[in-house]
Amino acid sequence: MCSCHGSFWFLRGHMQRLRVISSKGKYEVVVGRGAWRALRRFPQGDYTSIFVLTERALWMRWGKAFCREGQLRNAPILFVPSGETSKSLKMVERVAGQILERGADRRSLLIAFGGGVVGDLGGFVASTYMRGIDYVQVPTTVVAQVDSAIGGKTAVNVGQMKNLVGTFCPPRLVLADPMVLSSLSDRAFRSGLYEAVKHAILSGPTLFKRIEAGLPSLRSGNPTELDGILAGAAKVKVGVVGRDEREAGIRRVLNLGHTFGHALEEATRYRRFMHGEAIGWGMVIATTMAVRLGILDPGIARRIVHLVRRVGPLPRIHDLDVVDLLRLLPRDKKAVGGRIHWVLPEKIGKVRITAEVPTRVAAAAFRDTQQAKWYE
Amino acid sequence: MCSCHGSFWFLRGHMQRLRVISSKGKYEVVVGRGAWRALRRFPQGDYTSIFVLTERALWMRWGKAFCREGQLRNAPILFVPSGETSKSLKMVERVAGQILERGADRRSLLIAFGGGVVGDLGGFVASTYMRGIDYVQVPTTVVAQVDSAIGGKTAVNVGQMKNLVGTFCPPRLVLADPMVLSSLSDRAFRSGLYEAVKHAILSGPTLFKRIEAGLPSLRSGNPTELDGILAGAAKVKVGVVGRDEREAGIRRVLNLGHTFGHALEEATRYRRFMHGEAIGWGMVIATTMAVRLGILDPGIARRIVHLVRRVGPLPRIHDLDVVDLLRLLPRDKKAVGGRIHWVLPEKIGKVRITAEVPTRVAAAAFRDTQQAKWYE
Repeated sequence: MCSCHGSFWFLRGHMQRLRVISSKGKYEVVVGRGAWRALRRFPQGDYTSIFVLTERALWMRWGKAFCREGQLRNAPILFVPSGETSKSLKMVERVAGQILERGADRRSLLIAFGGGVVGDLGGFVASTYMRGIDYVQVPTTVVAQVDSAIGGKTAVNVGQMKNLVGTFCPPRLVLADPMVLSSLSDRAFRSGLYEAVKHAILSGPTLFKRIEAGLPSLRSGNPTELDGILAGAAKVKVGVVGRDEREAGIRRVLNLGHTFGHALEEATRYRRFMHGEAIGWGMVIATTMAVRLGILDPGIARRIVHLVRRVGPLPRIHDLDVVDLLRLLPRDKKAVGGRIHWVLPEKIGKVRITAEVPTRVAAAAFRDTQQAKWYE
Repeated sequence: MCSCHGSFWFLRGHMQRLRVISSKGKYEVVVGRGAWRALRRFPQGDYTSIFVLTERALWMRWGKAFCREGQLRNAPILFVPSGETSKSLKMVERVAGQILERGADRRSLLIAFGGGVVGDLGGFVASTYMRGIDYVQVPTTVVAQVDSAIGGKTAVNVGQMKNLVGTFCPPRLVLADPMVLSSLSDRAFRSGLYEAVKHAILSGPTLFKRIEAGLPSLRSGNPTELDGILAGAAKVKVGVVGRDEREAGIRRVLNLGHTFGHALEEATRYRRFMHGEAIGWGMVIATTMAVRLGILDPGIARRIVHLVRRVGPLPRIHDLDVVDLLRLLPRDKKAVGGRIHWVLPEKIGKVRITAEVPTRVAAAAFRDTQQAKWYE
């Protein structure tokens, strides 16, 4: 089904260049301080025009540095309002119309400079504008740097349904410089760490222990620690999408925590949780389910839950109704024929994908988590 | 760039099954009376649900026959208003929302039953719904049967710009039964024939002569003649897209007549010409350009123009301003860096793609055509 794989190598100190071989050619994921400079080596001159899609406040703070570091000149900047509402077909229409008006053709390049919203929207616009132009991802949030900007999944929302319409279309380059994370709010920063924890559960004890040890110092301490964790988490994503670009098999492991996570977001109309926070809760619930099903040692489960909770306070779930949540589960995009495919941890470094989970187990795990019975 | 090719074989009398090998797997284009029956051999049972996207009047006339012939049961039918305005991102949003509401998941199938609008819209929805579900094209117009339903180009319009947003995504099956063409208006029927003439110019004397000879009897005479021409024209498209799925090279020959054609449509706000009619004029202008550039024998040019004009009366162009039209040309999606890539006939069976055409030659050819100086 898939003809791609990932490989990694190191470059000058803390910067890493990870290589992804996708169905549409190779591309690099550059992670670390100074990553933006890799845009200088990118063949900008091959394009008839280059556009930047971003959010205004973010660009005011970092735009000048990015253009200087990347030696990017005279690129028109297109702003979209911050927030999830920009991930819409209406905005696709607006952005496509704007770049057309400014002369974008089939050989133009789009740079998506921002978090998940800008990345998903920009990727979708690029993958469909004139049936596809090249694009570069410059992720500026933790979630985007370790997860959403890597792998070529693009999407916009339709109504209340997140990511209902989208494409698989790899970028030409991903530039993740952790410097930019310094302007994130504490909550937004922490929200991204849940995805890093997810990648640690998928990959194994090395990254998991590194997060356990480094967690207290990630914002305030030595940047080396943060950079190492980000690069490690990004590497997990590169490895998975390299083996399964179109989510036919192994890539589904990345949905750990997402089944309940999406339901939590939807049940609260995307107002209560940041995405990563919902995934944090989703991982706790999936972990609890795995213990109830007897496939995960309670001691390891406690360690996972402890790390998730150490990341920071999560918005409340005690007022949510389990029946409402269960009703939302089959609407998840991962459901096929109404059957939910659960991703459940078996140990640190191994998950199982299964549809064989009785609803009562999911319900009980959610109630356990609400009441925090067994891991407190 | 491209890893696909086409091959052909015959099946029981007038029905032809053409095979396309695309980057996303093989698919068949079945052309001829009884083509809809090929849906019986299609693995309908592999899908969790099957949806039909169509137009109401068309479905009222042919829906029952299609379901019977194709042994399609209990498929929800989704109607879109007829006409170009349905090719919008707004309609994508509506259709995606509707099939979600009715339980469509990643293993659902969409059947686009209609002409170019339904085919392009349906293909785009299918190629992006949950990042891509399978779809079947059932073209019901001449243009769709010989051209737009084959090859996996999908698109919607943005503002006045036709097909600005789209994808390359091959269908799983194309079923073209000429029986359904009997309910087309004369004008719509003729409009499609211009595309068949285009394919004849691309392919060579055999198909070209067949159209020259068969033209008077296509609506009223023996269906064998029509079926043979349709299959021949479809085969040209299959052959081209088989060699160049993503329009990186050879596929661009299919744009013969489209550069001026699109400008004519845009200049008249898509109100005066049916698409094929604009392409008819576009081919005459391209032919005239080729003569002016000395790359086409005037005798052959006369033969091409004669055949185009024999198809039927074309809406007037004498009132259009050449400067206005020339201004619209670089907006065409085929333009790169503002340079227009012209497709010009060199003989019947051969075209040249070139950006080396002085604007004054294009202008003069348009004026010649307006005044019909040299071929009358």
